[in-house]
Amino acid sequence: MKVAIMGYGTIGSGVAEVLRINQDQIQRKVGEPIELKYVLDRNEIAGEDHDKLVLDFNIIAEDPEVGLVVETMGGIHPAYEFVKASLEKGKHVVTSNKALVDAMGSKLISIAKEHNCNFFFEASVGGGIPVIRTIYHNYAGEKLTEITGILNGTTNYILTKMRDSGASFEDTLHEAQKLGYAERDPSADIDGFDTSRKTAILLSMASGNRCRHEDIYTEGIRNVSAIDVEYAKFLGMNIRLLGSVQVVEDKYFAYVAPIMITKNDPLYPVDGVFNGIRIVGNCLGTTMLYGMGAGKLPTASAVVSDMIAAVRHQHEFQGIGWSEKMIDIEPMGSNAFNYLVRIEGTPDDVANEVKDLFLNDTTAFHPIVLDGRTDEFAVMTDVMFESDFKENMKEFEEKTGRRVFHFLRAELGKD
Amino acid sequence: MKVAIMGYGTIGSGVAEVLRINQDQIQRKVGEPIELKYVLDRNEIAGEDHDKLVLDFNIIAEDPEVGLVVETMGGIHPAYEFVKASLEKGKHVVTSNKALVDAMGSKLISIAKEHNCNFFFEASVGGGIPVIRTIYHNYAGEKLTEITGILNGTTNYILTKMRDSGASFEDTLHEAQKLGYAERDPSADIDGFDTSRKTAILLSMASGNRCRHEDIYTEGIRNVSAIDVEYAKFLGMNIRLLGSVQVVEDKYFAYVAPIMITKNDPLYPVDGVFNGIRIVGNCLGTTMLYGMGAGKLPTASAVVSDMIAAVRHQHEFQGIGWSEKMIDIEPMGSNAFNYLVRIEGTPDDVANEVKDLFLNDTTAFHPIVLDGRTDEFAVMTDVMFESDFKENMKEFEEKTGRRVFHFLRAELGKD
Repeated sequence: MKVAIMGYGTIGSGVAEVLRINQDQIQRKVGEPIELKYVLDRNEIAGEDHDKLVLDFNIIAEDPEVGLVVETMGGIHPAYEFVKASLEKGKHVVTSNKALVDAMGSKLISIAKEHNCNFFFEASVGGGIPVIRTIYHNYAGEKLTEITGILNGTTNYILTKMRDSGASFEDTLHEAQKLGYAERDPSADIDGFDTSRKTAILLSMASGNRCRHEDIYTEGIRNVSAIDVEYAKFLGMNIRLLGSVQVVEDKYFAYVAPIMITKNDPLYPVDGVFNGIRIVGNCLGTTMLYGMGAGKLPTASAVVSDMIAAVRHQHEFQGIGWSEKMIDIEPMGSNAFNYLVRIEGTPDDVANEVKDLFLNDTTAFHPIVLDGRTDEFAVMTDVMFESDFKENMKEFEEKTGRRVFHFLRAELGKD
Repeated sequence: MKVAIMGYGTIGSGVAEVLRINQDQIQRKVGEPIELKYVLDRNEIAGEDHDKLVLDFNIIAEDPEVGLVVETMGGIHPAYEFVKASLEKGKHVVTSNKALVDAMGSKLISIAKEHNCNFFFEASVGGGIPVIRTIYHNYAGEKLTEITGILNGTTNYILTKMRDSGASFEDTLHEAQKLGYAERDPSADIDGFDTSRKTAILLSMASGNRCRHEDIYTEGIRNVSAIDVEYAKFLGMNIRLLGSVQVVEDKYFAYVAPIMITKNDPLYPVDGVFNGIRIVGNCLGTTMLYGMGAGKLPTASAVVSDMIAAVRHQHEFQGIGWSEKMIDIEPMGSNAFNYLVRIEGTPDDVANEVKDLFLNDTTAFHPIVLDGRTDEFAVMTDVMFESDFKENMKEFEEKTGRRVFHFLRAELGKD
């Protein structure tokens, strides 16, 4: 099959590279060669594939020899228009573009269905981690109750470094930028938007319906301080930026936030730029998929796996199980966590209020005091709905006259 | 589609249960109900499905309504004859039977191909871990260089308990038997045969060819002692029973053995009855899949995922990429490891021989002496081929007159 790559950046050029490196293997596996015919790149950069460079999308659209188009341009426009036009010509499309899949995924799936071709996007979440196909195929018979992942390598690298070095967020970010692990404008990563889009895609996979990533509560890691990390270390926990979806009967919960997790959580050891995705099914129990969530070749490898699937199923539409129905996401207040509450001053004189507002009747008050620190202490609450916790925190401040400096959500009960 | 289950033991009855619990979900995902028509069980036990019990396989074989047969009997005969006859009638077959897949897999795949139906076996390795489909579909374009897994829950449970309690192998096995985590006759698990069969299936997945599990060096965990575990803990390592395959150009390496692994290995935190499978591809880098490797519902869930795949692809053969070509496995001596060598006596007077026979020129001799132990010490060798190590160990004993009490293979370099 002859193919075109639109967008010859890191991932697009990686796809061309994987097709070159593993040419024999791919031909053996699909029974025919996958041959790169065009590269579309508006910056006119096409490296080793310069002889295939075109600047006009219509050349690709109008060439009946091109059976498959790879979209690695990023952004929504003109990616959407190009993808739509390709599908309408009956060309399969494979993308790594999470913004496009999040915003237009179910629409594009239905266009693909109409034209009996395929729209695949394995690389849009978790890079080389096989999460989309695993949910659609392997867990098709499962009622998935939860999908929770470390979905962004940059933030996980920063949180890992902060734990290992004890340095501040700002210093660690700065170092990550110098090393190329964080972008010059790091907001999409560190403010959680990248994770939020991927979380929306996972919610669509779990629910079979559409959702808006804008409806997902999204908090990045900017406010995670060196002191927070010190508490986490003291408690033997790791702080991870999690994107999480839960399905409880017909209700859908989702959030993106830094969460303290325990050693029992399979996501606990996922360090550095690696990603991990924990999936819980009603019969399956807990599984976890781990790997490189970004990076040129791992992400390109996921794109190529979709290309192979498209060639193997070139005469039939393969659904991904998304309807066009839009679902509501419950408000953040209806999620429940434990909370590490950092309180001004020493534990004296506030035991009653702590017990009353943060702990169950049967839980003893064990203040956590970091070595050498007299200006604050912390307490780990029992599991509370976020709305209750926020109210009680306010009441605590009013009743005791003590400030709550900061709080961190924690999951103590997962395994 | 109407289906039959052959063998109503733990997994077979679990399949019936998953079909019942997730009936709506399954029907929605495949577009038609999957309906259990027959249960074949020679012990005449069919629990809730007693009304579907038959004792004669021919009733299933001759019923044109039955489009899919689940084989959860175990063993090779008569499972092989029943599966073969079903495929020859054009019925899809899904199995969890690793002995059957290991011995007859490529033969049955080719019979399925001939009759345009499918033979699927996701549940035969790693229970609810989606390893077979991931390798065949997601990593189709990758040159897989290594697959290494913790593939047996019983042995991993025992090794985890030994680490946590410091108890001996015998005591821990005895306790595991009392708790139902190990069988009364535990040999298939603890002597590594179960892992060896699964490793053979993974080698076929990685190579696309047949192999004999009898050709895989297989060492169980009987000889792992409390002192070995103490050394591992001292070094911050975990001992895991690994099944490993490596592909280097046209050469195939494989072994099953207890191996010491470091904190950097994604398999390090896989505790208790969980399984984990690390897969390395030339573009993909390292990924790891984690989950329940056994257990009634997780394994049954994997069987059901294959049933769904068979219904979705009921009119076309889906290859698993195995040829009938038999490959040779390199001898154990050609694998390379680090080795923890436990040597009689104190480190005095043997530094020269240790350096000469176990260490590179640039590696310093750091004897490891466990607290309070004067009868032995240990040394961690540099990476050596197993054949060289064995020779050098013998030479060491001859030259120094000291006995080597035991050695443990280790992987220091994996991440």
